[in-house]
Amino acid sequence: MGITFASARQVHIDSPFWAQRQHIARTQGIPYQLEALNDRLADAELSHCVRNFRIAAGLEQGEFHGYPFQDSDLAKWLEAVAFSLMIQPDAELERQADQMIELIRAAQLPDGYLSTYYIINGIERRWTNLADNHELYIAGHMIEAAVAYVQATGKRVLLDVCIRMADHIDSVFGREEGKLHGYPGHPVIEMALVRLYEAVGDPKYLKLAKYFIDERGQEPLYFPNEAKTYGNPVYRTEGYLGYRYYQADRPVRDQHKVEGHAVRAVYLYCGMEDVAREMQDSTLHETCKSLWRNMVDRNMYITGGIGSSSYGEAFTFDYDLPNDTAYAETCAAIGVMFWAQRMLRSEADGEYADVMERALYNGIISGMDLDGQRFFYVNPLEVVPEACREDYLRAHVKPVRQKWFGCACCPPNLMRLLTSLGQYIYAVDDRTVYIHLYIGSQAELSVANQRVKLQMESEYPWNGSVRIRVTPEKTDQFRIAVRIPGWCRNHAIRVNGEPFSVQVVQGYAYIDRLWRENDCIELNMEMKPTVIRANPRVREDAGKVAVMRGPMVYCLEEADNGEALHLLRLSSQSEFSEQWEPELLHGVLLLSCDAERTPLWADEKLYTDEKPARSSPCRIRWIPYYAWANRGVGEMAVWIREA
Amino acid sequence: MGITFASARQVHIDSPFWAQRQHIARTQGIPYQLEALNDRLADAELSHCVRNFRIAAGLEQGEFHGYPFQDSDLAKWLEAVAFSLMIQPDAELERQADQMIELIRAAQLPDGYLSTYYIINGIERRWTNLADNHELYIAGHMIEAAVAYVQATGKRVLLDVCIRMADHIDSVFGREEGKLHGYPGHPVIEMALVRLYEAVGDPKYLKLAKYFIDERGQEPLYFPNEAKTYGNPVYRTEGYLGYRYYQADRPVRDQHKVEGHAVRAVYLYCGMEDVAREMQDSTLHETCKSLWRNMVDRNMYITGGIGSSSYGEAFTFDYDLPNDTAYAETCAAIGVMFWAQRMLRSEADGEYADVMERALYNGIISGMDLDGQRFFYVNPLEVVPEACREDYLRAHVKPVRQKWFGCACCPPNLMRLLTSLGQYIYAVDDRTVYIHLYIGSQAELSVANQRVKLQMESEYPWNGSVRIRVTPEKTDQFRIAVRIPGWCRNHAIRVNGEPFSVQVVQGYAYIDRLWRENDCIELNMEMKPTVIRANPRVREDAGKVAVMRGPMVYCLEEADNGEALHLLRLSSQSEFSEQWEPELLHGVLLLSCDAERTPLWADEKLYTDEKPARSSPCRIRWIPYYAWANRGVGEMAVWIREA
Repeated sequence: MGITFASARQVHIDSPFWAQRQHIARTQGIPYQLEALNDRLADAELSHCVRNFRIAAGLEQGEFHGYPFQDSDLAKWLEAVAFSLMIQPDAELERQADQMIELIRAAQLPDGYLSTYYIINGIERRWTNLADNHELYIAGHMIEAAVAYVQATGKRVLLDVCIRMADHIDSVFGREEGKLHGYPGHPVIEMALVRLYEAVGDPKYLKLAKYFIDERGQEPLYFPNEAKTYGNPVYRTEGYLGYRYYQADRPVRDQHKVEGHAVRAVYLYCGMEDVAREMQDSTLHETCKSLWRNMVDRNMYITGGIGSSSYGEAFTFDYDLPNDTAYAETCAAIGVMFWAQRMLRSEADGEYADVMERALYNGIISGMDLDGQRFFYVNPLEVVPEACREDYLRAHVKPVRQKWFGCACCPPNLMRLLTSLGQYIYAVDDRTVYIHLYIGSQAELSVANQRVKLQMESEYPWNGSVRIRVTPEKTDQFRIAVRIPGWCRNHAIRVNGEPFSVQVVQGYAYIDRLWRENDCIELNMEMKPTVIRANPRVREDAGKVAVMRGPMVYCLEEADNGEALHLLRLSSQSEFSEQWEPELLHGVLLLSCDAERTPLWADEKLYTDEKPARSSPCRIRWIPYYAWANRGVGEMAVWIREA
Repeated sequence: MGITFASARQVHIDSPFWAQRQHIARTQGIPYQLEALNDRLADAELSHCVRNFRIAAGLEQGEFHGYPFQDSDLAKWLEAVAFSLMIQPDAELERQADQMIELIRAAQLPDGYLSTYYIINGIERRWTNLADNHELYIAGHMIEAAVAYVQATGKRVLLDVCIRMADHIDSVFGREEGKLHGYPGHPVIEMALVRLYEAVGDPKYLKLAKYFIDERGQEPLYFPNEAKTYGNPVYRTEGYLGYRYYQADRPVRDQHKVEGHAVRAVYLYCGMEDVAREMQDSTLHETCKSLWRNMVDRNMYITGGIGSSSYGEAFTFDYDLPNDTAYAETCAAIGVMFWAQRMLRSEADGEYADVMERALYNGIISGMDLDGQRFFYVNPLEVVPEACREDYLRAHVKPVRQKWFGCACCPPNLMRLLTSLGQYIYAVDDRTVYIHLYIGSQAELSVANQRVKLQMESEYPWNGSVRIRVTPEKTDQFRIAVRIPGWCRNHAIRVNGEPFSVQVVQGYAYIDRLWRENDCIELNMEMKPTVIRANPRVREDAGKVAVMRGPMVYCLEEADNGEALHLLRLSSQSEFSEQWEPELLHGVLLLSCDAERTPLWADEKLYTDEKPARSSPCRIRWIPYYAWANRGVGEMAVWIREA
């Protein structure tokens, strides 16, 4: 029953586009981030993460520094290392990771508790501020790292730490009398516990995940009581968002609008769908579907980014998608991908993969520069550098990627996503192999009681031609479902050179036949520059268009088009030309088209009743959105006016 | 030398438009605000203003509440009362004002010091936080009230209080050794001291005003030293604005970009121009001119509103004029009018009067509802009520006027502006009468060594025909300069029924002739609906148009045009029709024109590559901007897209 994704171990990515990024993540990002966690980067915000563990473990004297959730950065780094080791063994890296794990083990309390913030600051206060102090969030990320690390290396040290920790948490939380009826301010432990359950098989962890989901938002609300009991500050819940900030103002099954802090929201929805799937909880699954519809239909940027306000890093209201004050946190787009994958496990609907792909090629990888050492927390769709400097309301928008952040959730999240990318491509059920993403790779899967090798070759995302070589152990009948993306208007399938006609069902062409060694599927997806319009209810995009090509959103940069991008209008009948630029931005397909530029005025006055001067025709150049801000500080725009 | 405005005493307004507003201010606004200052309004934010004075005077026990500048609300109310008594004697109102003045006198310390915040909280801390605690600001407003009150009633009690206070301030501040080298965080005392000098003739007050201006921003900067010395919080100067917030980061003569808190800025510029004029300080005047150019050419909304960011209630950067997050505080627009009047005193350039008129008919009177009992602090140019409710970044924008504010600078400021409006209409120099504003009124002025009566009749702002009856004491040659507004493309002048042809010089038609009793000037200004475009550098107005008619900016409201105003586009060849609606919004001239409405989509998806459906033609209705939000909660827009 259900659909299972191939694990990262089963898939070897050799797509030029992605292999390069994985290489950068492995050889640049991961070592760089270890330096960051050890406070060895020059001129960057300090992490203090490793030092907190050393202090908690008694190896050093000192005070806790950083956010209460600082520990989670190390957990995400370890998870990235685990996936990296699956791609490419690296004894030195593994030694460094083992050292870090040893440090974590040493910091853990005998009863299983683990959060350096409270271990250092006073353990008697633990579990008194679930709303904001992230102990369960840290636990969740530790579990995710532990499961990946044991899968990568066979080493159980971190897994055993996490089992002790999870058992401790299970002893503290629950509906039973004498236990705390709390739940995390920042979800992640829910999906982590399901992953732990999948890894070790103990249903207690699944049950605990379900408890956290079911209890959330039940009356009387836990967080205000907690704040009152322990005198915690409640600044987050004053005013605009209230307990919606935490998705904890009412039971999750009563939530149908995506609300509050966007990363918390999608992490929660991941856990909800995990529990729904594992426990066949159909009302929970239906809740996820209705939240999904609300997000995808009304609250998602064209880049797959979510969370349109910097206030609370949060969703606002339906169709409110401002471009220049967008928040669209990198982690939130990553969370969209996590959630989409979970929805796909429950239901083979290509829309989930479309959204996964949209986030991946746009709002996720925009979070990192081409060298893997500078990061965006916020991913705006329009930038005027002067506005970021001169107006505090746009202060969260940075025109250049940063070396590190005091709150550094995004960089290690990107690393673990990139290194684990193999696990998003293929999935199987009883008699079907699903190909969700066209990322050139080799994989070995189990389907129809045998092992099947797949070899996928493609220049995707620059080209819509994909060739998949299929090698079953033995000749057998089963289905290979190739995804026909939502952006694709025309496609053709050939099997062994012969046209293969098949109806597309919910975004997948199911090729059901007897497969023999060296069978070959050729999928041709028409991929061309396309003008996109937003729903008229999106105020900020009214009268504007964006340009996509395949899964990729394009944008205009000042570097190519001069200043004052808002003066440009796309010509209505413009033909696009495409140009492969191997030297530009590590290799991109550049698009050009006709536009009109509103002339500036000769005099300085602000307002006039005179007729405007005629626009002048010009040619404008588009680059992929993910590659913006790699050539210095300048303006950027995704949406431009239409002539 | 110079141009002198007729005082409010000399002018009696009978324009239906303005007499109605003055009536509302006198009979509704002023009594209502006395209730507010006495905390007698139901369901409104408390003022505590009068109570603070009672406590300071020893008449009551209690603590200080409200902002440190709370006293100034009473001062502004008294100034409004003074002007109101000039319009219409009112024994009961005068008695209430005398009571308040007695209370102020009782609260004043023997050495002349007056600020209830420090009198109640500990006088030893006075003058230790000039940056934020507003003692000099309160003093300024008290002086302005005192001068108006003695002019209205002949009663000197408040003036004597203020003279003692000003003398005390003069003993505390100055370049001399042993004096504090400080200056106010919030300017106003500069222009107030010039007013005091004009009223009582003592040059010491002019000199003190000049000191405050000259010292501002000199190195070493006073405010950071003050903060350090006394341990004051410096939150305002962290980050974005620094000491630009106070226009105190460098000497005023080195300031050429309007910066920081917008009300502080224009109040400072008023004082600068006052000192420049009275002391023939040409470099200071040139500084004012360059600041004026920067504001008018790059930093002013079409409504005359200024200050585009809620952060610091401040100016941002040139051409940054967002409509939906606009701050455009009512007080700032009033300050624009104050400043424009002062520039006009130095130079008869119609642009100053144009700006004065722009602010008056739009961004100022929009601050009050039609009944004078509800107020806007913020005057946005585009409102979506949902955004105000759901996004904190737009929280400062209110879709309905409020009863009162904890920080209630705007309502009493509006009252004193409306009641003193007579003093902005006419001015004279040696041999010229200037008519700056076309507000129906009767006036008696001194020009060319005689008294001249003027009687101006007009339906302005609804109609551009103005008739001015001139009655000199004796037949004499002098000039009457009638302003030809910047918005006016065609005009005609007749004198005693005969066409009078004269060149317009800097916005004024100088009618130079021998004037006899009952001479009559008829000025006909073509006034019709006009489509306005903003400078292309204004990003937020790109591709958009606004509609003006004469001095009046129009807007669209949901009440007339349905929801989703952003879907409307003005048809390029649209003809406007005009309709006088006596019952609507206390009587307005409604405009209608052709537009196109983008159809909503049948399905909910956010993005599509499909061609958009054709727009449908419709008729849209425009109301004057000042009258918006008088018919419940709904959307509003000044700028709309052009088809």
